[in-house]
Amino acid sequence: MILSELATPALLLEKEKLMVNIARMQASADRLGVQLRPHLKTLKAARAAEVLMTSGARGITVSTLKEASYFLEHGFKDIVYAVGMVPAKLPEVASMMARGADIKIMTDNLEVARVIATEANQSGISYKLLIEVDCGDNRGGLHSESEELLHIAELIVNSSAHFQGVLTHAGHSYGANDISAIEKIAEQERETVVRAATRVRTAGYAVDTVSLGSTPTGLYATDLTGITELRAGVYTVFDMDQQSRGVCETEEIALSVLSCVIGHNKAAGKILLDAGGLALSKDRSADKFRPEVGYGQICNSDGTVIPELYVTSVSQEHGHVRVRDVNDYALFPVGSHLRILPVHACMTAAAYDYFNIIENGVISEKWDRVNGW
Amino acid sequence: MILSELATPALLLEKEKLMVNIARMQASADRLGVQLRPHLKTLKAARAAEVLMTSGARGITVSTLKEASYFLEHGFKDIVYAVGMVPAKLPEVASMMARGADIKIMTDNLEVARVIATEANQSGISYKLLIEVDCGDNRGGLHSESEELLHIAELIVNSSAHFQGVLTHAGHSYGANDISAIEKIAEQERETVVRAATRVRTAGYAVDTVSLGSTPTGLYATDLTGITELRAGVYTVFDMDQQSRGVCETEEIALSVLSCVIGHNKAAGKILLDAGGLALSKDRSADKFRPEVGYGQICNSDGTVIPELYVTSVSQEHGHVRVRDVNDYALFPVGSHLRILPVHACMTAAAYDYFNIIENGVISEKWDRVNGW
Repeated sequence: MILSELATPALLLEKEKLMVNIARMQASADRLGVQLRPHLKTLKAARAAEVLMTSGARGITVSTLKEASYFLEHGFKDIVYAVGMVPAKLPEVASMMARGADIKIMTDNLEVARVIATEANQSGISYKLLIEVDCGDNRGGLHSESEELLHIAELIVNSSAHFQGVLTHAGHSYGANDISAIEKIAEQERETVVRAATRVRTAGYAVDTVSLGSTPTGLYATDLTGITELRAGVYTVFDMDQQSRGVCETEEIALSVLSCVIGHNKAAGKILLDAGGLALSKDRSADKFRPEVGYGQICNSDGTVIPELYVTSVSQEHGHVRVRDVNDYALFPVGSHLRILPVHACMTAAAYDYFNIIENGVISEKWDRVNGW
Repeated sequence: MILSELATPALLLEKEKLMVNIARMQASADRLGVQLRPHLKTLKAARAAEVLMTSGARGITVSTLKEASYFLEHGFKDIVYAVGMVPAKLPEVASMMARGADIKIMTDNLEVARVIATEANQSGISYKLLIEVDCGDNRGGLHSESEELLHIAELIVNSSAHFQGVLTHAGHSYGANDISAIEKIAEQERETVVRAATRVRTAGYAVDTVSLGSTPTGLYATDLTGITELRAGVYTVFDMDQQSRGVCETEEIALSVLSCVIGHNKAAGKILLDAGGLALSKDRSADKFRPEVGYGQICNSDGTVIPELYVTSVSQEHGHVRVRDVNDYALFPVGSHLRILPVHACMTAAAYDYFNIIENGVISEKWDRVNGW
């Protein structure tokens, strides 16, 4: 099938670029001596997980229990659910464990840990618990020096649940756009979670897993001594957010949205596309370093980047493109196709049920995805 | 089923508020003497369309051909596809017409009109065409004084296609936050599309449909002389975007996302929810008039608004809530439920496959939705 036969908007994934990106992070993990546990929140596709495993990854990370269940059904049993656990979600975890899942759950909250310990004691189900540590992202996680860290570890060790280890995520690595700053954040990420592991071990408890990761720190860390596993996701396809931070080149972005020109509003100086806020997402994370990118970088239908042409604004089903000059109307007539490199791949892909896989410029297969909750 | 049994995040639709909102716009259309053709891009649910028709609406508006096809399958035949047509999408329209759809398509482009005329002549299919007019939104549409307007009408009238009329949308009514400004935009919207219709009629061509609409102008127009139909969508449920513009009260918002508190990051002064950028969307349209709203207004699980508590930032699966003071941790413990009133209902709802319908505080049924393309 050729691209021009696709109904638009459509989600495209270039297999060759995907494979290069996967190999790059795998080489980084191998060089640093850690296991790579890719975060499937970006691709949410069983076929992608297969490719990652074949390339050397071990285990997966997910952001929803629906993802966990989907990947379990496809044979992926070693799962980290890297979003804070709540008691109401324990029965679903227990159900997956009964179906063979080796699933690790996470909290940073003593009360939740207490419920997990109690539930484990009552049911005999050995929930595997990671404690989340905050390395500067200011999202979830305990301070590595906190008392709660040791209290939770102690509570779990003395229950029928299993204390698995510690985990952190340097989400603040997205706030930097030079490699030396990212290297420093990577070292802060490593130091913090290793410090947490050391404190727990010093208290007398075994720590199997010392987990960290983000795409920038995974690619640019220079030393991961004391770490057992690296988690990252968006590196598989990259996006304009990562490009704006210097983490990848535009040409390495493997994900795009195929769109059709549906109008020329010459009075307003714009071209209209059939990919709007729903097809691209309203994520503006590239703004910090490249506000001109707007809602995406525009390429020709073959993927060649068109300099200085961006989706400048969106409504629900319209992408608005400010023309560079009047010649753009002739270059991009109504009915012609353009590709858009997304600002944030995870957000954009979530609007689609499957990827159209592109190999040698044609669609070779479709990979289904899991969305929602 | 009670709310606390729902897996979170979950999409809630309060039936009582929905019915009041639907009645309000229907009363406006009735008072102004125009047909109401609700835009189903917001709810995308056959059950919602049934309720709208029972309440007096005639015909529906859609933003994608997938919506058109879904509603056709559910028996809704009178459809306006209010996004610019392209030749590649004509076969799908022809297929729906063969299945009984009375579908009206739209363009503002002479070349597209030429292809539609040619296709109609060759196939004998009488595509019904509306011409889009720009009343100041600067998205799609021709100027009401443009020569192309008459050229397209002439071209279609002299083909096997059917010239249906003219259509406009005052999307710029979202840029105002006082009723007198909205009233002026409503009159500009009316004047522009009536002027376009008059020019076409003066040129000798019949104009069946003179269509306009948006939620603000639909509710606050004082005169719709010359108009045949009104299109609007988000009024059915409203959102914080509309609230920030004074179009509705917070208590009239019928859509919300049920979420669970998954963490307290006391060092960072925040509560974390399991509803993030995917569950809420990254739409920030309330920013212009109410930047404090962020990604949504927080309510108790029963829907009572909690003053000055908002989703202040989001990552993919996390909503970050800046606490007002330390008492908020005790008020909203990990595991407790909160509801979030979305910034932009259309964007938020699109992340879910169905609505949980709330009546008398409990879930009475589920309404399926159509998403994607």
